[in-house]
This record gives sequence, structure tokens and C-alpha cells, in this order.
Amino acid sequence: MRSPLSHLPEIAADVLERLRERRPRVHCLTNAVAQAYTANMLLAAGAIPSMTIARDEIGAFVARADALLINLGTFDAERRAAALKAIAAAQKAGRPWVLDPVFIDRSKPRAAFAKRLAAKAPGAVRLNAAEFEALAGAKPDHGALARHAKKWKSVVGLTGAQDLIHDGARLAGIANGDPLMARVTAMGCAGSALVAAALAVEPDAWSATAAALIVFGFAGEIAAARARGPGSFAIEIIDALAGLDRDTVLARAKVT
Amino acid sequence: MRSPLSHLPEIAADVLERLRERRPRVHCLTNAVAQAYTANMLLAAGAIPSMTIARDEIGAFVARADALLINLGTFDAERRAAALKAIAAAQKAGRPWVLDPVFIDRSKPRAAFAKRLAAKAPGAVRLNAAEFEALAGAKPDHGALARHAKKWKSVVGLTGAQDLIHDGARLAGIANGDPLMARVTAMGCAGSALVAAALAVEPDAWSATAAALIVFGFAGEIAAARARGPGSFAIEIIDALAGLDRDTVLARAKVT
Amino acid sequence: MRSPLSHLPEIAADVLERLRERRPRVHCLTNAVAQAYTANMLLAAGAIPSMTIARDEIGAFVARADALLINLGTFDAERRAAALKAIAAAQKAGRPWVLDPVFIDRSKPRAAFAKRLAAKAPGAVRLNAAEFEALAGAKPDHGALARHAKKWKSVVGLTGAQDLIHDGARLAGIANGDPLMARVTAMGCAGSALVAAALAVEPDAWSATAAALIVFGFAGEIAAARARGPGSFAIEIIDALAGLDRDTVLARAKVT
Repeated sequence: MRSPLSHLPEIAADVLERLRERRPRVHCLTNAVAQAYTANMLLAAGAIPSMTIARDEIGAFVARADALLINLGTFDAERRAAALKAIAAAQKAGRPWVLDPVFIDRSKPRAAFAKRLAAKAPGAVRLNAAEFEALAGAKPDHGALARHAKKWKSVVGLTGAQDLIHDGARLAGIANGDPLMARVTAMGCAGSALVAAALAVEPDAWSATAAALIVFGFAGEIAAARARGPGSFAIEIIDALAGLDRDTVLARAKVT
Repeated sequence: MRSPLSHLPEIAADVLERLRERRPRVHCLTNAVAQAYTANMLLAAGAIPSMTIARDEIGAFVARADALLINLGTFDAERRAAALKAIAAAQKAGRPWVLDPVFIDRSKPRAAFAKRLAAKAPGAVRLNAAEFEALAGAKPDHGALARHAKKWKSVVGLTGAQDLIHDGARLAGIANGDPLMARVTAMGCAGSALVAAALAVEPDAWSATAAALIVFGFAGEIAAARARGPGSFAIEIIDALAGLDRDTVLARAKVT
Repeated sequence: MRSPLSHLPEIAADVLERLRERRPRVHCLTNAVAQAYTANMLLAAGAIPSMTIARDEIGAFVARADALLINLGTFDAERRAAALKAIAAAQKAGRPWVLDPVFIDRSKPRAAFAKRLAAKAPGAVRLNAAEFEALAGAKPDHGALARHAKKWKSVVGLTGAQDLIHDGARLAGIANGDPLMARVTAMGCAGSALVAAALAVEPDAWSATAAALIVFGFAGEIAAARARGPGSFAIEIIDALAGLDRDTVLARAKVT
């Protein structure tokens, strides 16, 4: 039997290699602020993004994709209708999907819609502490993470100074990352897209979510060392992700 | 009594420090071209952007924000409806808002809508010469700037080779900036967002508008010295803004 | 009589100079992912972009533009209606327009709409091999390129490892470019916008399309030599395009 925690760095290195070999298609229903940056992050990881939000065709795109991201950062009528169609198409095709309930702490209708989607068993939910509170109605302590992972039949990927990944039974903490990641718009959205890409190549959703956040955080560390400020950091993290190799991931992953 | 003009460099340095300490929330109803770049510019200045355009929730976002930007660079039905809701929410909450009537010289319906919004007493109107002519029906000489600042009950921030800021009584000219700023899309939109952020931390709208344009133009000068062309300039100005300190602002502000 | 193939490098250098001197206006109806990057690429080339997609005003923008780009990368109802209005306005004003049928191999309704637009005699159609197959129903060999250029009354600009430009009578192959161009989102969309800009300053659509792709591919080569990965490459190609001079274009164009 595997020791999940101690194997996570190796799984992260595996996931990175599989992304580059298999080049999974990831369809992203995401907000307009994040679209271009998310697509470039996926391309840097090896995945192939598609981004349409039109309800007439999103089903066709999702049916041909290997994973789906639903990001609620823009909450217009077109995207709401498209989200429901996209999730239905993903479930019909047996594809994993990730929920990123951006800023639901700022808007009640958005929070209500996120709850409705969380009840549809996403492969993973990637969010920050304020968003977790709005979605779960509880502070994100270990017990609440476990309880809501079970309730949502999902993996909870809570990001912050330390990332916590819980599937109801297993908990991983990841200390990779850099404070500059919070100074670039759509960085969290791009991280959620990497989780979706990882789910496309790693069937254990807990391992996939942890792997994506390890690789992402580590790319952030490399970028921070090279950057002069948040502008160059946003560019350097793309280069760092594209240039990451297996040995560096194994040497530098910080899992507890 | 203060001597407004001579104090502007000091006020610009104060505004920069307050943005970093208070981290005001700035809601931006802006065009799709500008959204990501505007958000990154605000983050670099210390502010916290939100960008939804959905009419169902924009009121909730604006009510929790410290300032609002209305940018007309995309003029679809959703954004028009959202603009009216957002301004009503800002006025109800007593929050300042900025109007950026992008490209109204190219489209009569857009100009007509901008006139309607200018009559709602924006805290500041940031525009270029062609946009001023379309909005005011007059060349932007000093008299016309003063007259329309009074008419719109607003501060007029006219940007160009030299920026002119008029509140109907006081006029400031700012010579900071670089021609590369005109070679990057959404640069003016990002500048308007900085004006909105400044209004959130400085109650005198004339001083706030001048402070934002001093800091913005000065970041442009630093970036131009480091950049190889417009691509790297767009990145360097984000880094420069994030790295600006009080002493450099005081030493380099060019106010007349 | 001119020898078209051997003159293409010179025409490419001419087109670049005309873009900087005449600064043509290029209206882009494009997808949200590509809007900002496309605008910055046009600005780097010397053109002046506008990007509205609102059906109420797109006619006014196109009537004042020198060329039009129709990119199908986001296929919502607003953009479909706007596309028809924009093409009608361009045809009425006698302006050239370019069709970029992004990802039509992934969506049947999108492919059907693209066929409808191809029948309206675009100045050029810029696409990759999969998109050509979906639009033409045939593999993109030289015969099919010639046949469909005639059928669509257009120039076909097929991009890939080698670019092929066919107008039904003349064929050019261009070997400029770099594999990193496929690792940045919206790079193809930006290339199509450059084709539209070239059509605004060069009446022979075949020469204009080839010129734009030579200049674009060559900027990619310069950028690849300077970049650390896809993030910095996306920035460097903007700088490279803005900095290109006539002699370098003449020396490095790879036309067969």
C-alpha cells in the first residue's frame, strides 16, 4: 500500500511528465479577466486549452476535452447557463471537472449558484479561506475541510500561505509558493486550471490536486527569485512552469 | 492655507503610501481588452480590484468597494445596464466614481451614453483630447476644461503629452510620462483605474486625480528606461509602480 | 512584370514601413482571450486597433476603420450578430476584411457559421490545417488550397511549420517562425490581425498576406532567441515586431 503523503512529490513529477506527453485538452469556462492568463499557464504546463463560454457550443467542446474548469469569476447569465450545460456534458462523458468559486464571499447570488454546483460532485473545489467560508458556512479548519469534502463528494484544495488538500480521509499540506502570487490577477484561477489539467492525467483526485498545487507553487518560487516585481513575476512563472524538470520537483517539493 | 500646486508631489507620495496601507477595493466596470491589465495595475499600486460586469451582482460588489471605475471601452447592453446600477450603488454608499469615456469620438451612441453619465457628477472624468471634444463639444483649452469641470461637477483629468487636471477653480499640469504609454493597449484605462483608487484614499478629488497621474506617469518613465519595446514596457511599468518609493516620487514629480 | 515570389521580401519590408507611416485603423471582432494581445501586436506593428463587439456600434467603428478582422474564437450570439453587421459595413465602405475561423474543427455550429462567412469573399482567410479541413472538407494540399481560394474569392493563408499562401493562381511558402509561437494563446489570432493590417496598406491581398506572415514569423525568430520560455517569448515578440527594420526583413525572409 502506498504512503500517500510521502509519495506526493513523485506523483507531482509524474503528473508534470504526463501533461507534457499526453497534452490533455482542458476546457475552461472562466472569467474574462482570467481567460488569456489561464490559457497561457495551461500551455506552459503542456495542456491544450479551449475557452468558449457560448452555451450553443460548450457541450461540443467539453465532450472533446479531457477535463473541465468552472470558474465563477464573472457571473453573467450566459456563463451560468453555459456552466450547467458544460457540467452535464462532462458528467455524461465521464470527464473530471473543477469548481473555482471566485469571490463568492462578495455576492450572495454567486454564492448560491456555487452551492448548487458543489452539490454536483466536482472532482475538486479550489478556493481560498473566505470563499470556503461562504460556500461551507464554516471556518476552514481540518474538521470542516474533511466534512465538506465528504459532503461535496470532492477534494477540497484550500490555497493560502499553506495549501491544504483534503478528500475527507487524507490531508496534505503544501508549503510551496510565494507571496507575489497574490499580487497578480487571475493567479488563483490559473492554479485551478492546472488542477483540472492534473485531474485529466491522474485518476486519484486528491493526488492530482496536490500535484498541481506543488508544481504551481514551486514555479512561483522560481519566478519570485527572478522577478523584479509583480509584472515580471507573472511572466517568469509561465517560463518557470514550462521549464520545470522532474529532478527539481522531487528536490524542492514541501509536503507535510 | 495650502498651496495646492506646490504640495502635489507630497500628496502623490501620501496617496501612494495610503494605497499600500489601506488597500482600497476598486470595482472596475471596464472593457474586456482592459480587464486583466487594469487589475494588475491596481494590484501593483496596492489596491484590490474586482471586475464583474453582471448586472445581477454589480450592486453588491460596488456597495463593498471603496471606489468605482466606469470605462465605456466596450459598449454592450449588459455593461450599459450594469453601469447605471453600479453608479446608483456608489452614490447610495457615498463612494467616489470615475468616468473613462473611451473612444466616444468613434461612436455616437457611446458619446450619448457618456453625456448621460457625465451629468451624474463623477468624482473625476479621465479622457484624451478627442474624447473631451466628443463629450464637451469644445476644444480642450483651459477655459473649456474649467467650464466643463463645473458643468459636470467633476474633476477633468485630460491626458496627453502633458496632463491637465482642472476642477473648475484649480489647474495642474503634469509632465511625467513617456510616449511608450500610447503604444500599449489599455494603458489609459489602467490610469483611470489608478485615479479611482486615489479617490478612495484622498478626499480632495483634484489632488487625488493629479496624484494618480503623477505616480502613473513617473512609473512610465522608469519603465521606459528599462524596456526594449512596448511589450517589455507594459511589464516594466507594473514592476515600477509596485516598487516606487516616497523619496523618488518627491524628487521626480514634474508639476507646473 | 513583377516576379511575385522573389519580390515578397521587399513587399514585406514595404508593408512594415507603410504600417508605421500610415497607422491604419484595424477593427477586430475577436474572442475575449485574444483581445488584449491582438491589440498590443497591432500597436507594435504601427496600426491602431479598436475592439468593440457591440452590435449597436460596430458598424460605426468599421466604417471609420481601414480593415476588419473577424475571429470566431468566441461564438456567442452577440458576436455572431456583430460579425454580420461588421462585414456588411466593411463591404459597403470598400474595406478589406480577414476571416480567422478559430477552432471550427471542434464545433459544428461554428463551422457552419464560418462557411457562411467564407462565402462573403473575405480578403484573406487565415487558418491552420485542422480548421482548413473543417471549412473546406478537404486536406490542405496545394490543389485544395487553390480550389478554395477561388471558391471563396479570397487568399488562403495556411499557417503551420511552413506557411502557405494561395490566391488560386499564386502560391508562396514561408519558413519564418518558431515552435514557441504555438505555445502562446492567441498567437494565431494576432497573426490574423497583422494580415488585416497589411491588407489596409497593400492592395494585392496575396502579397499583403504573405508580407504579414513573413514579418510575424521573423519577429517570432528574434523573440525565440531572446526568450527563456513561452511567457517571455510572448513579450519579446511584441518588442521584436516594434523594433524590426527594413534591412533585417530583407536579409532574413525565407520565401520559397
